Amino acid sequence: MSSSDIFIGETIGTAVLILLGGGVCAAVTLKHSKARNAGWLAITFGWGFAVLTAAYLAGGVSGAHLNPAVTIGLAIQGGTEWGDVPLYLFSQLLGAMIGAVLVWVTYYGQFQAHLTDREIVGGPGAQDTVKAVSKDEPGPVLGIFSTGPEIRNVAQNLATEIIATVVLVLAILTQGLNNEGNGLGVLGALITSLVVVGIGLSLGGPTGYAINPVRDLGPRIVHSLLPLPNKGGSDWSYAWIPVAGPIIGGVIAGGLYKLAFA
Amino acid sequence: MSSSDIFIGETIGTAVLILLGGGVCAAVTLKHSKARNAGWLAITFGWGFAVLTAAYLAGGVSGAHLNPAVTIGLAIQGGTEWGDVPLYLFSQLLGAMIGAVLVWVTYYGQFQAHLTDREIVGGPGAQDTVKAVSKDEPGPVLGIFSTGPEIRNVAQNLATEIIATVVLVLAILTQGLNNEGNGLGVLGALITSLVVVGIGLSLGGPTGYAINPVRDLGPRIVHSLLPLPNKGGSDWSYAWIPVAGPIIGGVIAGGLYKLAFA
Amino acid sequence: MSSSDIFIGETIGTAVLILLGGGVCAAVTLKHSKARNAGWLAITFGWGFAVLTAAYLAGGVSGAHLNPAVTIGLAIQGGTEWGDVPLYLFSQLLGAMIGAVLVWVTYYGQFQAHLTDREIVGGPGAQDTVKAVSKDEPGPVLGIFSTGPEIRNVAQNLATEIIATVVLVLAILTQGLNNEGNGLGVLGALITSLVVVGIGLSLGGPTGYAINPVRDLGPRIVHSLLPLPNKGGSDWSYAWIPVAGPIIGGVIAGGLYKLAFA
Amino acid sequence: MSSSDIFIGETIGTAVLILLGGGVCAAVTLKHSKARNAGWLAITFGWGFAVLTAAYLAGGVSGAHLNPAVTIGLAIQGGTEWGDVPLYLFSQLLGAMIGAVLVWVTYYGQFQAHLTDREIVGGPGAQDTVKAVSKDEPGPVLGIFSTGPEIRNVAQNLATEIIATVVLVLAILTQGLNNEGNGLGVLGALITSLVVVGIGLSLGGPTGYAINPVRDLGPRIVHSLLPLPNKGGSDWSYAWIPVAGPIIGGVIAGGLYKLAFA
Repeated sequence: MSSSDIFIGETIGTAVLILLGGGVCAAVTLKHSKARNAGWLAITFGWGFAVLTAAYLAGGVSGAHLNPAVTIGLAIQGGTEWGDVPLYLFSQLLGAMIGAVLVWVTYYGQFQAHLTDREIVGGPGAQDTVKAVSKDEPGPVLGIFSTGPEIRNVAQNLATEIIATVVLVLAILTQGLNNEGNGLGVLGALITSLVVVGIGLSLGGPTGYAINPVRDLGPRIVHSLLPLPNKGGSDWSYAWIPVAGPIIGGVIAGGLYKLAFA
Repeated sequence: MSSSDIFIGETIGTAVLILLGGGVCAAVTLKHSKARNAGWLAITFGWGFAVLTAAYLAGGVSGAHLNPAVTIGLAIQGGTEWGDVPLYLFSQLLGAMIGAVLVWVTYYGQFQAHLTDREIVGGPGAQDTVKAVSKDEPGPVLGIFSTGPEIRNVAQNLATEIIATVVLVLAILTQGLNNEGNGLGVLGALITSLVVVGIGLSLGGPTGYAINPVRDLGPRIVHSLLPLPNKGGSDWSYAWIPVAGPIIGGVIAGGLYKLAFA
Repeated sequence: MSSSDIFIGETIGTAVLILLGGGVCAAVTLKHSKARNAGWLAITFGWGFAVLTAAYLAGGVSGAHLNPAVTIGLAIQGGTEWGDVPLYLFSQLLGAMIGAVLVWVTYYGQFQAHLTDREIVGGPGAQDTVKAVSKDEPGPVLGIFSTGPEIRNVAQNLATEIIATVVLVLAILTQGLNNEGNGLGVLGALITSLVVVGIGLSLGGPTGYAINPVRDLGPRIVHSLLPLPNKGGSDWSYAWIPVAGPIIGGVIAGGLYKLAFA
Repeated sequence: MSSSDIFIGETIGTAVLILLGGGVCAAVTLKHSKARNAGWLAITFGWGFAVLTAAYLAGGVSGAHLNPAVTIGLAIQGGTEWGDVPLYLFSQLLGAMIGAVLVWVTYYGQFQAHLTDREIVGGPGAQDTVKAVSKDEPGPVLGIFSTGPEIRNVAQNLATEIIATVVLVLAILTQGLNNEGNGLGVLGALITSLVVVGIGLSLGGPTGYAINPVRDLGPRIVHSLLPLPNKGGSDWSYAWIPVAGPIIGGVIAGGLYKLAFA
């Protein structure tokens, strides 16, 4: 696989992953979104189909790792060359940041309305007007960018991210590499995306399942840089957990594969 | 592909797409529908399986574009001949209008009850009676036919439609054309339909995700023509955005494909 | 295909279809069911996966028609011999009746509790007790067996069933017959089942989407025969619509196929 | 298939099955879980994708039975050697117990908060504090580990488990064994997982659908051993039904296969 294929596939693929993944969090969270309060099922299916779309799009180009934990697991397994790993990781982080900016563009008005207490009145066909009425507090929007724990506990939060990532990467290592030789095929992309829905439904309750270092770090950087009013802090004290947990999970999955399945 | 294949496949396919897609909006919106208030997940899955059904039905006939943005993206990519484009677009618009009429036929009584404040009393097995009781206002039904923004903002609304369409068309261009040579295969139809569910969940919040010019324009024309009581205006001032946005998105996706992936 | 294959596949397959399809209606409707009030999405996905399970199970045996509208559509198309049609239909009706009885067995206690106003008190681990407390009226249970319209209107109800069945059968005729030669393959079974979910979401609102004569008639016969307390009437005045509508739909789909797609 | 393949595939596979399956029950049940009250659809899809993930992971290793009812059905059918059955069953029970412990680790803080009436106050970015406020009773958590009936009735509960298991195992026996020769292929894993979603939606209402002896027994043993505060009893009086029912179901399915389909 050429360097430009890796760069293009992983950058565009991860941008699409975060655009759709962050997008569903925005859709369910923000005022004046048609999907507001659509619930946890919407979030987990939204993230799953974000993986599907990105993997479908980039699978034939870069293998669609889209996740440093997957790249590292594959490198340990032998499916990816170690020399390619830095480019994979750089492209994934870049793509994640691009994706987070695109979420902001897509939901620009919703972010403004949500964060500034302005109430927008008027339906389709009418001239909409904006009133500065404060019905409820400006809501937090960090959760649209990054994950956060329901109960803050370093040991448990780290354990949850490690366990969830081992499940993901091990599933990809044992079956996801089909005979096309360069990563997930079309059916593999579909099944992996449903595996991600399953991980979200089952293991996402405590921390919001980052299971991917750049999925959390890239958008968190963007959150800290964007000119959002009343946006609050970016919770950097938690930021190392959704990076370290998934990397450890990827290493464990790669090792487990070599130990038990190779 | 023969002209009659294109005409038949695209007309019937797009009619089925809009029958099912508009149908789920009617099902969730209208009084006296078993699906009333089934929520955003129902709408997004309903539209996704509308795509699946139409693509499954027409895939082997016309390649199941069903969407001018897809046709234009494919023409730029080289997967469709430019000379066939006008016939594709005409058939898609015709099909979309037929589909919207079929939604009205299917939900005829529900439209009447919804728009005229009449309350229907009686259960299965009983002789139903109709009372003219006004419990709530006649609801708007334009949303069953066409999309509309939650926050009216030309720049953001256009950007949202462009971004969502680029994701859709790029996914189809990079992976959707399988070795059957004439468009989406059966597995591609399945995955594309779930990509559409994902786009709806993630990017549908601000504008209701037209991502297809005829999906919005065809039913809007039908809305303006149908003899619906109290139907209100057809919001023509917004109508150009869900046409222009997806076309621009299709062009960008086609160009991006030639630039980065070809 | 031998007569015994047709008989076994269609009888067992349709029994499983109705066991699961009627089952999800019981699950969502009846008191003391864990799935109570799980909503319209649960019902539509439940019916879809009922089709999937039955088609997966019987596909390699009888082709898994499971529906007279499909059998008739295939006979018109030429995919099934007219001489086999009576055996298909008989087996389907028999299977549907068996399935409805199995729903009753599976939910026996729930039917009793629901229909007799008895309140069951006690949690896991405790000795459950039964109190005769009437909190709400004995609910109707006919909807667990058969379909019924929200608005009773012969023309619209018939039109809705015809339109929905044309979509189903046309999708099967144009793509569902893969190269295994004897009906739906495994991937076709999956996609057809999601098409059924889509039809339910989009076109099920007015009548509850029978789209299959035996799916409605078989369980209605069983409802009229079962010793259910306070069960009410079986609404025979409506019963011909979900039989005639789908048969007409199957004929139209078969004719449309020969006219436009053959 | 070697003994070590069976041991590794079934132990790891069943551990993942129960980790995700028990996980979704924890996610929906426990306080301070992001998925709390996500509903029955979340539970049934969560269990289905648990099957998918485990089967995807272990399919190429041990055939991914993951369930004594499947193993016994396959042995009767002839797809598995009787001599391998004890190792399959032992590995499955061991895996189920490991999976249940991992659920506890993943949701450690949520279990503590749920069972001890402690209220945790504070949002992301704030220093969380814990207050001992009793808003509602410590909830039961046995349902996260094992199944229990809504209405306690030996005959009906057993019948429900038998019927649901026959559907599952018969579907696997008739179609699930594809030409890879060693159990479920990738597409089979996908379809079987959706069949399990369907069984849950349709037949799960009365007993919570164990349909797998170790899925119930393994976690119940772990529940009785774990140091959970206020955990209550493990309801051993019911424990034999979700073991016996699925085994009887597997035997019936295997026999039915030999009688009708072989």
